[in-house]
Amino acid sequence: MDIGDLAERVAQGERRALARAITLVESARPDHRDHAAALLDSLPKDRQALRIGLSGTPGVGKSTFIESFGMMLVAQGLKVAVLAVDPSSTRSGGSILGDKTRMDRLSRAKGAFIRPSPSQTHLGGVARRSREAVALCEGAGFDVILIETVGVGQSETVVAQMADIFLLLLAPAGGDELQGVKRGIMEIADIILINKADGDLRAAATRTCADYTGALRLLRKRPQDPPGYPKAMMVSALQEAGLNDVWAELSALTEWRKTNGFWDATRSEQARYWFEQEVRNTLLSQLESTAARHMLAILGAQVASGDMTPSVAAERFLTDLKNSNASKS
Amino acid sequence: MDIGDLAERVAQGERRALARAITLVESARPDHRDHAAALLDSLPKDRQALRIGLSGTPGVGKSTFIESFGMMLVAQGLKVAVLAVDPSSTRSGGSILGDKTRMDRLSRAKGAFIRPSPSQTHLGGVARRSREAVALCEGAGFDVILIETVGVGQSETVVAQMADIFLLLLAPAGGDELQGVKRGIMEIADIILINKADGDLRAAATRTCADYTGALRLLRKRPQDPPGYPKAMMVSALQEAGLNDVWAELSALTEWRKTNGFWDATRSEQARYWFEQEVRNTLLSQLESTAARHMLAILGAQVASGDMTPSVAAERFLTDLKNSNASKS
Repeated sequence: MDIGDLAERVAQGERRALARAITLVESARPDHRDHAAALLDSLPKDRQALRIGLSGTPGVGKSTFIESFGMMLVAQGLKVAVLAVDPSSTRSGGSILGDKTRMDRLSRAKGAFIRPSPSQTHLGGVARRSREAVALCEGAGFDVILIETVGVGQSETVVAQMADIFLLLLAPAGGDELQGVKRGIMEIADIILINKADGDLRAAATRTCADYTGALRLLRKRPQDPPGYPKAMMVSALQEAGLNDVWAELSALTEWRKTNGFWDATRSEQARYWFEQEVRNTLLSQLESTAARHMLAILGAQVASGDMTPSVAAERFLTDLKNSNASKS
Repeated sequence: MDIGDLAERVAQGERRALARAITLVESARPDHRDHAAALLDSLPKDRQALRIGLSGTPGVGKSTFIESFGMMLVAQGLKVAVLAVDPSSTRSGGSILGDKTRMDRLSRAKGAFIRPSPSQTHLGGVARRSREAVALCEGAGFDVILIETVGVGQSETVVAQMADIFLLLLAPAGGDELQGVKRGIMEIADIILINKADGDLRAAATRTCADYTGALRLLRKRPQDPPGYPKAMMVSALQEAGLNDVWAELSALTEWRKTNGFWDATRSEQARYWFEQEVRNTLLSQLESTAARHMLAILGAQVASGDMTPSVAAERFLTDLKNSNASKS
């Protein structure tokens, strides 16, 4: 594989080369991993996209929002990439169609690129691949990268570690309930968007927006927030209303963070975080070989039956692992 | 160090030998770790204590409960050990006095043994040491081991992995609020004890107990629960009321689980869990040497400044680590 050539074509923004490069970083094969590292290392380092994390539970209109918002940006001449991070996804590479169908116009737009979540059962694997796909899109010269995730649990935290700005999309709620949004997710969000502020739901959206404005005021102030942030806003992805305002807010927030040094500081911290995660995950990946799993099962059974203490079994396992590593190298 | 002699004296229930053995398993020195593993391996394997996990936020009367409940057990001729698991604790070995003062009578009782939390900043370290201290107390012939933790976050999950039965201690609440007890902790508890069911708080305790009885009914049924479990009960640790009932319930639950095979199955699963945790923690502990921290800091700075990608830096770090391990062995 000619990595230099692939890197060049990715840097020129060729979508087919980008798709191929993402497939490469998603591969678990050791030789592919080496190629992926070389590829990532040879991308242009001077390009920065606006990386937007986007979360919201199924049914709040995430796909419609991405389609409308993405089309608006594309109409302004911006290049937009959409990536999904969903560790629970069982979608294979062949079902890209699924995502493209959800975002029919955007998937056909020149200047847009849509890629579904890599299929993987554990978050760690999805996280690294997604972070590298973000880097590839950035190297390919995209202006805006939307990183979409489902609003369930830890994947938000992971996406926040690869995003410059985090949006939380919510549906209008009845009464004064706050939809059980986890405090942790509220604390990650820079802007909460109340979607479906149209038709019969407009009044409810106004109330929900006011509720969240109040709730956000109770959160601890973060250093990276200008006055008035985090904030809640209303949009209608269906009627394409309020999208310009969202873009204006994102631009203003970006500008403020860049001017005040938080933009670079956050990116530096994120890079350091991913470095340390990769070190940890690689060390633990030794436990996933067939031989290691086999040995873990055998010693685990002896520990479970009381024939061996956990400490003695762990020591025996680690000694064997070290010896088998030594004999390999 | 004569480990055979120490093991023998621990097995005879000598409290000074037990204290010394716990200090040994709490040590991070490699030679101490080897001694600790040998010690744990040479303890009598046929002794089983009733290991009771106990959680409750500060102010619910945990120390008073342990004191009263422990004294009741000691009066019945049972040997009682009390261990604390508190990863946030900055207490050093010298402040055992703190715990002993909290439990004045119990600390002076013959047949009781009290040990505070090992001082350590991360839960993983505290967890392993505490689990090994539990094994030492069991090997020393204690009948009941109370493993106390504060009601904040992950430490409950860790204590549940070393306990046969888990108690959650709560104070009477006003109205129908459920005191913001996390669902995860509710799901761990076998028995919820509403303490302070005395004086002015008796009526509130009755209401709170009814509320929790209702809330527990909504939880998913676990296979290891006999009919009517998990349950909520009232006690007054101060007036020493209801303690006999708690003991009767614990004994009945123990009996049921032993008869129905859940007791042994849980212990087997726990041992397997600790084995795998120890393997993982040992692999990751390579990152904690001075040399490794130094290299992580240097490479981390290069990643943060954008001079190196996280993947390339991780690979460089891991190659260096492997070489330094190889040159050591």
